[in-house]
Amino acid sequence: MFQQRTHTCGQLTKEDTGKKVVLNGWVDRIRNLGGLIFVLVRDRYGKTQVVFDPNDNKEVYERSLELKNEFVVSITGVVRTRPEKDINLGMKTGEIEVLATQLEIISESEVPPIYINKDEDVSENLRLKYRYLDLRKEKMQKNLIIRHQVMKATRDYLSSQNFLEIETPYLTKSTPEGARDFLVPSRLKPGTFYALPQSPQLFKQLLMVAGFDRYFQIARCFRDEDFRADRQPEFTQIDIEASFIKREDIFNVTEQLIKDIFQKTINEKIVVPFRRYTYDDVMNKYGSDKPDTRYGMEFIELSNYFEETEAKFIKEELANGSVLKGFIIPEKAENFARSKFDELVEYVKSLGSSGMIWISLTNSGDIRSNIKKIAEREIRKLIENDIIKKNSVMLMILGENSKVNQILGQLRNKIIKQEFEKKSGFDFLWVIDFPMFSWSEEEQRIMAEHHPFTMPNLEDFKKFKDIDPLKIKSQSYDLVINGYEIASGSIRIHDRTIQKEVFEVLGLSENEIEEKFGFLIEAFKYGAPPHGGIAVGMDRLVSVLVGEDSIKEVIAFPKTASGSDPMTGAPSPVSKKQLDELNLILLNELTNKEE
Amino acid sequence: MFQQRTHTCGQLTKEDTGKKVVLNGWVDRIRNLGGLIFVLVRDRYGKTQVVFDPNDNKEVYERSLELKNEFVVSITGVVRTRPEKDINLGMKTGEIEVLATQLEIISESEVPPIYINKDEDVSENLRLKYRYLDLRKEKMQKNLIIRHQVMKATRDYLSSQNFLEIETPYLTKSTPEGARDFLVPSRLKPGTFYALPQSPQLFKQLLMVAGFDRYFQIARCFRDEDFRADRQPEFTQIDIEASFIKREDIFNVTEQLIKDIFQKTINEKIVVPFRRYTYDDVMNKYGSDKPDTRYGMEFIELSNYFEETEAKFIKEELANGSVLKGFIIPEKAENFARSKFDELVEYVKSLGSSGMIWISLTNSGDIRSNIKKIAEREIRKLIENDIIKKNSVMLMILGENSKVNQILGQLRNKIIKQEFEKKSGFDFLWVIDFPMFSWSEEEQRIMAEHHPFTMPNLEDFKKFKDIDPLKIKSQSYDLVINGYEIASGSIRIHDRTIQKEVFEVLGLSENEIEEKFGFLIEAFKYGAPPHGGIAVGMDRLVSVLVGEDSIKEVIAFPKTASGSDPMTGAPSPVSKKQLDELNLILLNELTNKEE
Repeated sequence: MFQQRTHTCGQLTKEDTGKKVVLNGWVDRIRNLGGLIFVLVRDRYGKTQVVFDPNDNKEVYERSLELKNEFVVSITGVVRTRPEKDINLGMKTGEIEVLATQLEIISESEVPPIYINKDEDVSENLRLKYRYLDLRKEKMQKNLIIRHQVMKATRDYLSSQNFLEIETPYLTKSTPEGARDFLVPSRLKPGTFYALPQSPQLFKQLLMVAGFDRYFQIARCFRDEDFRADRQPEFTQIDIEASFIKREDIFNVTEQLIKDIFQKTINEKIVVPFRRYTYDDVMNKYGSDKPDTRYGMEFIELSNYFEETEAKFIKEELANGSVLKGFIIPEKAENFARSKFDELVEYVKSLGSSGMIWISLTNSGDIRSNIKKIAEREIRKLIENDIIKKNSVMLMILGENSKVNQILGQLRNKIIKQEFEKKSGFDFLWVIDFPMFSWSEEEQRIMAEHHPFTMPNLEDFKKFKDIDPLKIKSQSYDLVINGYEIASGSIRIHDRTIQKEVFEVLGLSENEIEEKFGFLIEAFKYGAPPHGGIAVGMDRLVSVLVGEDSIKEVIAFPKTASGSDPMTGAPSPVSKKQLDELNLILLNELTNKEE
Repeated sequence: MFQQRTHTCGQLTKEDTGKKVVLNGWVDRIRNLGGLIFVLVRDRYGKTQVVFDPNDNKEVYERSLELKNEFVVSITGVVRTRPEKDINLGMKTGEIEVLATQLEIISESEVPPIYINKDEDVSENLRLKYRYLDLRKEKMQKNLIIRHQVMKATRDYLSSQNFLEIETPYLTKSTPEGARDFLVPSRLKPGTFYALPQSPQLFKQLLMVAGFDRYFQIARCFRDEDFRADRQPEFTQIDIEASFIKREDIFNVTEQLIKDIFQKTINEKIVVPFRRYTYDDVMNKYGSDKPDTRYGMEFIELSNYFEETEAKFIKEELANGSVLKGFIIPEKAENFARSKFDELVEYVKSLGSSGMIWISLTNSGDIRSNIKKIAEREIRKLIENDIIKKNSVMLMILGENSKVNQILGQLRNKIIKQEFEKKSGFDFLWVIDFPMFSWSEEEQRIMAEHHPFTMPNLEDFKKFKDIDPLKIKSQSYDLVINGYEIASGSIRIHDRTIQKEVFEVLGLSENEIEEKFGFLIEAFKYGAPPHGGIAVGMDRLVSVLVGEDSIKEVIAFPKTASGSDPMTGAPSPVSKKQLDELNLILLNELTNKEE
């Protein structure tokens, strides 16, 4: 049995000088200097320097020679102040060291396959296979500690506002409306399946019907999508729902929650309320429903400057209803060689644009442009009107407005990545008034832009049989931070008739509505309160807080892009007995057998 | 758009008299008295009486005639004190009422299939099908509110002690060692499966290896067992693990946690530390590893009283190593007619006993017993020695000690249920030193009594090749409250060699060890700290706190005993497309096709 610590490795200071202490932790670094052994002992709380001195205790000194990195040790010793020259004010324990009087090796370690105490560029696969070592890194420890603090601050704030955390089931019914469900075969009812929830949406709405007027849950959600670089098959959201509220109430709660989280975790003071843009606004200004506005570069419509241009193709397109829009890249003209413009032209063509117009004005007043020959007059007008300033570049796209927005949006994002240093600070904004429906090219049908339980704008919706459904707005909203959609929510439908009509627009038959969502519509028969809510993406929120690009850096045990865990080997084959019990056969095995 | 509430229905008091207020809520009850309509409006916070007076506002009065139970309403009115005779001090709002000046019907309700405002005996199926109505009941609201408070108190306490909440994956690897896993087919790796975790056990141990020395998580766990009356396929546990600790540290944290929870939720002061019994102790005294000691009735060994008895069958069995043990049911002799004893004899026979000896001593000193004729001398001695007191009953079993314990234990439980009123108060105890292994009759093999990661008693274990493994104790412990196992934990193995040896005792081959648990044993190569922990069953803890027998009363959306949800219809059939994507065929469909 080992000697238990009296202090952590992040605790001792000058005040403790002379104390006899016990430390437990990992050997972080060993140095042999002037006949002494210096060992840095590490735990979650910090590092402490331990000295082994042969003149003080020869036996313990000699045992210290056996130590290697990552050994787990229990060290007894006496705290003393370091010699002046060795003081390290960058460390909390940097003014002291512990002179060892006893050394116990609790666990040995082989040479770890990845470094703990220095940065190196190892493959994601190796990091995840040895995640328990990867997580020993100071950065990963900090990330998970902040994640804990975010969860704690969330629960503290919401509980203080009378929200109740209520757990909803993870074994639920499959209602494939949005993404693909993960399925769980039932053994007791052979041939049937549970689904893992894509979100607690229906259950939280039923809790509203049950009268729990302020609910939240930090809930795991599951989506069986083709995992893109930064998507995980399971993810965590702060799920919030309330009754007898209006949109402003949800905004207020969310803003206070975010403010509290930033304050309590990274001591950042956030100004609320956040700016608001309509969906149409941000699309017209930034070509994205989650713009990072810290980089400016709002779109400007320039059609009126070119209505009488000699550049025939522009004039004709404008006459046919096209628009000419662009954005300015300030202070960057020196960075843009002809070849760079050519690359950007190729890029926008790959997005479906017929081309891109570019204008560059150097500090010395030189104009370069791919339309200089045919439209110099208009270019000079833009300069005279101070739209194009010195040392700036303008990129423009001509075409149908929504397509122009979309292409300029992607172009703007590319320029941000390519031309700018990552900005610090936080940029918060609400996007409101999303369309209720959108057209899915992939599935060739109308989909719900948010989800089918979103309350449409009733002014629009009462005409739903007569107008293009894509023109109907909804009572939904997103919270965007630094270009990431951090939260998404809406006022919900609480009326059976409206709910059924929305399902009809989505092309569900009476039977399908009944089979999939009958219980929700049934619930609305018995006094459903007006309600609405929001869901905050925990993984992304934490990654933004700590400044990580990938959410994998803030999840203890994430999966790879193919959904596997190199450490445990999940997912893995299972025994025939397990499959038999579930009434299942693997299709490929059956095919092999028949061959 | 509705008028939003200014107050909840549990808020207004005499102090608010004269205020103009808006309430939102459900119509709980309607009375028509003396030309006035009285409506009790309900929300999560309470109920408030609203009066509609035709002399005050005829139009609003007339609209109030449309109201029915469970309508959702917004009512504007003025607070006034009730006439003296109508004051109800049992309600927080019982001294006031609101005279309605405006009435808005937000949602109508059909007649609900179950009563909200009175108790009735409806089937579980009906309650679960309309769970959103069942949850409107005051009792259910209270239960879920307390559950929220338990979770909050848990997180507050553990966070204050530097424990970090860290989320572990729900899509994990199948390692069928204890219960049966729920499986989740992987689409991206056809033919492979994730498993839903039976507990975060391995991940929390890996977090210890990673250096997060104090971890907790309120985690969902999944077991695909044949659901007994009070078991759920998914359940919640407070999962706790710590490094560099000993058993006493876990006891201390758990006791303080439980103390905090009882104090903060039901204002019950709990005395710590809790009593401790070894496993052998409780088995010998109560025949159960989770005894409810509030009912007393400890077992007494009586063999020595009967060594020289004329009752030959007793004497012979005792000579052959059997024991005679029994317990006293105090103050109950009057309740035990001959027929009751006969029933109990049949009961113990159904448990595998050859019979039961019973003695009853009435208040007037009459002795009744099924061995009175052959052992009156010994009975009188028991009375003389004050072992059997007046008006009490003794039940005894003869046989091999562990079997006697087991049968007496079940008998004692039956007597508790049958003869005693449910006791109030709370009975806490630790059971320690469980056996490391047990023999599974069902699987005909040695199983881990706790789980295979439990540290055995090392004194015992170093002889594991020479002694009966069932004799080896482990460093495990259970917390028992009122006869329920509320928490279970152990010091874990952190040494590869011991871990492998334990797997060997369990009959796993080298290959199986590597395939299933290779990653854990690999992790122990790189400096594993000593660690241990505990898991508290949240559902049972809350049910004990609120005095419910069934955990379904403290779960928002539980499943039936067959694992189904009558509300959503889960589990349910899924589309062929979904199965195809998962590379699966249903065995029964295939069979049908072939026929």
